[in-house]
Amino acid sequence: VFWYDGQLSETPLQPFDLTDRGLTLGDGLFDTSLARAGKVFRRDAHLARFAAGAATLGIPLKIDDAALALDALAQSIGDGALRITLTRGGGARGLRIPDNPKPIFFGAATPARGDLIFSSLVLAATAIRRNETSPSSRIKTLNYLDAILANQDAQSKGADEALFENGAGHVACAATGNLFAIFGTRLVTPPLSDGVLAGTMRALILELAKACCLQPAEESLPLAECYKADAVFVTNSLRLLAPCGALNGKTLGSAAHPAILKLQDEIRSAVMSECGAF
Amino acid sequence: VFWYDGQLSETPLQPFDLTDRGLTLGDGLFDTSLARAGKVFRRDAHLARFAAGAATLGIPLKIDDAALALDALAQSIGDGALRITLTRGGGARGLRIPDNPKPIFFGAATPARGDLIFSSLVLAATAIRRNETSPSSRIKTLNYLDAILANQDAQSKGADEALFENGAGHVACAATGNLFAIFGTRLVTPPLSDGVLAGTMRALILELAKACCLQPAEESLPLAECYKADAVFVTNSLRLLAPCGALNGKTLGSAAHPAILKLQDEIRSAVMSECGAF
Repeated sequence: VFWYDGQLSETPLQPFDLTDRGLTLGDGLFDTSLARAGKVFRRDAHLARFAAGAATLGIPLKIDDAALALDALAQSIGDGALRITLTRGGGARGLRIPDNPKPIFFGAATPARGDLIFSSLVLAATAIRRNETSPSSRIKTLNYLDAILANQDAQSKGADEALFENGAGHVACAATGNLFAIFGTRLVTPPLSDGVLAGTMRALILELAKACCLQPAEESLPLAECYKADAVFVTNSLRLLAPCGALNGKTLGSAAHPAILKLQDEIRSAVMSECGAF
Repeated sequence: VFWYDGQLSETPLQPFDLTDRGLTLGDGLFDTSLARAGKVFRRDAHLARFAAGAATLGIPLKIDDAALALDALAQSIGDGALRITLTRGGGARGLRIPDNPKPIFFGAATPARGDLIFSSLVLAATAIRRNETSPSSRIKTLNYLDAILANQDAQSKGADEALFENGAGHVACAATGNLFAIFGTRLVTPPLSDGVLAGTMRALILELAKACCLQPAEESLPLAECYKADAVFVTNSLRLLAPCGALNGKTLGSAAHPAILKLQDEIRSAVMSECGAF
């Protein structure tokens, strides 16, 4: 199911401006979220992050329209993955931002792959660095080619997903999620300044940590430290919390770690509480 | 004038797949070239680079179709700017590359801004680094958001265009062109490994250097070295050779440098020879 031009549509084929800067230059951003029983999990956090990203890029966004679309897509799909996208709209040739941009907003809902939730991931570090000097490293922009190439490489090595270090040699994130490592009772995740998206699940985990007897800390994390962790996991809006089964070939017992099981319980409760179903 | 679905069209509004990965993930590439008197300057170099980029990204390209489009757009516009774009086509949610991608190819021709050719540029360094660890730093991909943000910042400081250093602190390129610096009779440009697009004009300049009494060298270039240069210039397919009038506020006498005047003469001759007009 798609959302285009202010309404639901069954077809992805729509009249679209070939000068759209989202298409020609990656000048736009998106958001991915989980629908359960027709409701959006962490709905307001997703909309707030989407609005913050649009503001950073200077792309006008009518947040009420985005909310309307998100709710309509969730109701339409029931259980599934939601994506909303905002581009800066059509423009003349070249990089210069139009004086009066006419942004384009659209969305899509895809049936659930319920098996994704809490499923483990095998990670492999990529040689492509996350560019923490760019604001786009902290926004879910349309510039995903590095993540695509890194994941393709990781998958060719038998892993599920790439792990990015940044230019300073600190771990930043996985190709499609934030990274956490548990050391005893300490729960460490890289700070946003290391080139990290402000994930909605990342924020939830930091909120839930204390209830799970973990002390949360946003700290730079060298890759070598991760090997010493008791557990490593990745968060995103569709997997929620994905234990890392192995990192660069080193097996990790993340999936059975009690703190991870407890975090997953808390997340399950949060989904139940917000959506009325899991 | 546009090219879509194998033919010329007057309108940019076309039936387009909202799941197109070029639009949703920046999964694609493009090429910009100059048309003069209905012909494409450096036509074969542009097509070859486009094909090489598509091959690196693993996006199937029918190069004869691209050539057909480029020629048709050039003939249609006479004098102008040409752009051809290739995306990986539609796909399911997520980053994983479809097993059988159906790439989308389209193009556009825009009337000439003849005043761009050889016009000077004022450059300002940006804090966003060019990510030389990524293959996409050497390909004209759809991921142009860093360049857009950097140029917006440069223009807010009164400059025309941003100058990128890479993660190693070496100069890489301007937001829309390759960079050259002249030291005596030495002509230095950063190597591709520093995160640099293999510009068609860059290649032509390296070819023409000796005829202009310059010794060409592809060498890493710290920003501080650029201030000591006798002249600095930017090359791209529409400006051809743009002398740098000032760099981070330091005035440079690039436009009047005899080697630059000679290079511009040679370029003018090359355009005349290939297109029959300048």
